[in-house]
Amino acid sequence: MAAAAPLLFASATTQAQSARNAVAAGPYPTRAWGVTETAGKFAPMTIQRRALGDNDVLLDILYAGICHSDVHTARGDWGAPGLPCVPGHEIVGRVVAVGRNVTKFRVGDVGGVGCMVDACGSCENCLADREQICVNGTTFTYDSPDKVSGGHTLGGYSERIVVTEKFVIRIPPGMDLRATAPILCAGITTFSPIRHWGVVPGQRVAVVGLGGLGHMAVKLAVAQRADVTVLTTTPGKIAAARAMGASAAYLWQDAQARPELRNHFDLMISTVPYAFEAEPFMQMLKLDSTFVNVGLGEARGINPAAMAFGRKSLAGSMIGGIAETQEVIDHCFARHIYPDVEVIRPEQIDAAYQRVVGKDVRFRFVIEFASS
Amino acid sequence: MAAAAPLLFASATTQAQSARNAVAAGPYPTRAWGVTETAGKFAPMTIQRRALGDNDVLLDILYAGICHSDVHTARGDWGAPGLPCVPGHEIVGRVVAVGRNVTKFRVGDVGGVGCMVDACGSCENCLADREQICVNGTTFTYDSPDKVSGGHTLGGYSERIVVTEKFVIRIPPGMDLRATAPILCAGITTFSPIRHWGVVPGQRVAVVGLGGLGHMAVKLAVAQRADVTVLTTTPGKIAAARAMGASAAYLWQDAQARPELRNHFDLMISTVPYAFEAEPFMQMLKLDSTFVNVGLGEARGINPAAMAFGRKSLAGSMIGGIAETQEVIDHCFARHIYPDVEVIRPEQIDAAYQRVVGKDVRFRFVIEFASS
Repeated sequence: MAAAAPLLFASATTQAQSARNAVAAGPYPTRAWGVTETAGKFAPMTIQRRALGDNDVLLDILYAGICHSDVHTARGDWGAPGLPCVPGHEIVGRVVAVGRNVTKFRVGDVGGVGCMVDACGSCENCLADREQICVNGTTFTYDSPDKVSGGHTLGGYSERIVVTEKFVIRIPPGMDLRATAPILCAGITTFSPIRHWGVVPGQRVAVVGLGGLGHMAVKLAVAQRADVTVLTTTPGKIAAARAMGASAAYLWQDAQARPELRNHFDLMISTVPYAFEAEPFMQMLKLDSTFVNVGLGEARGINPAAMAFGRKSLAGSMIGGIAETQEVIDHCFARHIYPDVEVIRPEQIDAAYQRVVGKDVRFRFVIEFASS
Repeated sequence: MAAAAPLLFASATTQAQSARNAVAAGPYPTRAWGVTETAGKFAPMTIQRRALGDNDVLLDILYAGICHSDVHTARGDWGAPGLPCVPGHEIVGRVVAVGRNVTKFRVGDVGGVGCMVDACGSCENCLADREQICVNGTTFTYDSPDKVSGGHTLGGYSERIVVTEKFVIRIPPGMDLRATAPILCAGITTFSPIRHWGVVPGQRVAVVGLGGLGHMAVKLAVAQRADVTVLTTTPGKIAAARAMGASAAYLWQDAQARPELRNHFDLMISTVPYAFEAEPFMQMLKLDSTFVNVGLGEARGINPAAMAFGRKSLAGSMIGGIAETQEVIDHCFARHIYPDVEVIRPEQIDAAYQRVVGKDVRFRFVIEFASS
């Protein structure tokens, strides 16, 4: 193998293929789009991706979704980010090189990277396929301490990324790649609570907030044959909700005025990314049921006595583990469940952020890098 | 049976016994202790108990516990109560008459009445033994609309009460009656979540607040062979917690400073009856675990992101159904689990309330009426 350096070859079985796609073993100067000050404008920049390790996969990024978390992070809503800040944790890319121990991918495959790129692998949560809450600290895809390279991680608004193979999801051949990236965050984030709280056909599920996460929640719950109701603040989204299969859709204040919606829902999934008054929604929960706050907005003003009367729960949930992320990709592929996407170029990121904040996106922006 | 009026006889099988205990069929003028203005002083008064219906049981009350809810209600903490306000929903009494259809009790038996005295019996929750959350409105033992007699219900700080037999709990012969009443609220309120969230031997259970509810939670969880930790604000209760079988007891601020208590507990039961900062406690919850707020204090300041990271839940729970209340009585009798009580006379109620608010009770006041 000495002759391979500085080129990298994959394992023997894929050597011929690798040879046709030989690339330098890195590190890789990579074009990226990020901000150099909190809440600054996005600009192209060059970042470094680490040299390919034995277990690593190099992806040429094709698409990266824009998640509301990207906006929160780049704008400092959750505290000042590490700079430069390159967001992006809904990533689909072509495998262009693999480390010598990699078995899960061959050059030419398509891989996906979601919200995390590493975890310890040995704690009780990692062993239980819950790498997103690694006891020793999950490495998130951006703005997270980078235990391999130092500094902080840089995300998917870039042309290349190097990730250990375990954290790269297999994207089945034939999947619609333009619309696949958002499944890696918006999809898994809503799929996981639908699974965990055991939604079964016929149950009444409410989705609060119809944005990127919300519209995936609707599609996934409808596919589960749940009876889905959407609660939105945007009149123009009522029809869209019905088109996705929701049996009903209401503006918040209209829903809250309907007595027939009290004690009504078996599960409520809030995708609202800002603080909101939660008590009116808790009133709509059926007895013994759960309101899952995946949007991470603060649920304010909950009445503990009313909660006790119905043995109701407020719960948090965050993405899902790697196995569950693979599951949602395969699940969506098999059932043709895709987000509604608007594909943009990298230079449109600032404008897209404005529209995300203004709730003017149906329903997920995806940045295409192949054309840039 | 015409000759029976105005006396009441029980069913044929207990007729001889009833004849020896014949009492007027009511209505019954009854001595009670209540307040005639919100936050007023307790004074003796005469109230009316309804005439015995065919399904009713008349109890001569022996003991009534003082619950923090009594204090909240009489003082108007939860809004102005109906006046006069006669609290008391931990009641143990001797059966002195039964309606003609009553089969569950004979004259001379001991019955218990907890937080509720009626429910519709036909809604989905009643049919599921969850009468405390009757869809058509549970009738609570005091300060609740009285669907039979009109007005509002009057509780156990009184010498007699008439209750439909279904809502009277059988108290086994041989039970320590002085210490039984608090099981009907403090006991069931803490027993129900221990059952519902499935505490098993060896699990780590935290009890927040060591008052009437808290000390029952400790005893019940210890009996379940859980590893129990008490979190209190009262230094003097540390030793008491250990004496009850808790493996550890800390002041809140001490516990919150201990890194080994982060992500530690399988279940946390808060019995705190006032608003409190909940986030430091949520941090102590193990991943995927639940903080149950039975004390009805507002849980403030919870971080939705931290909750999502651990898929943690905040839940409410309130007492339990009639079958479960019977179960906790039988469970405690079989295992000799009793609250620690301080028995007082009715004229000591005001002083006892002061001491409840001042956290100066070990751990439940019980009013004895037989001696009054």
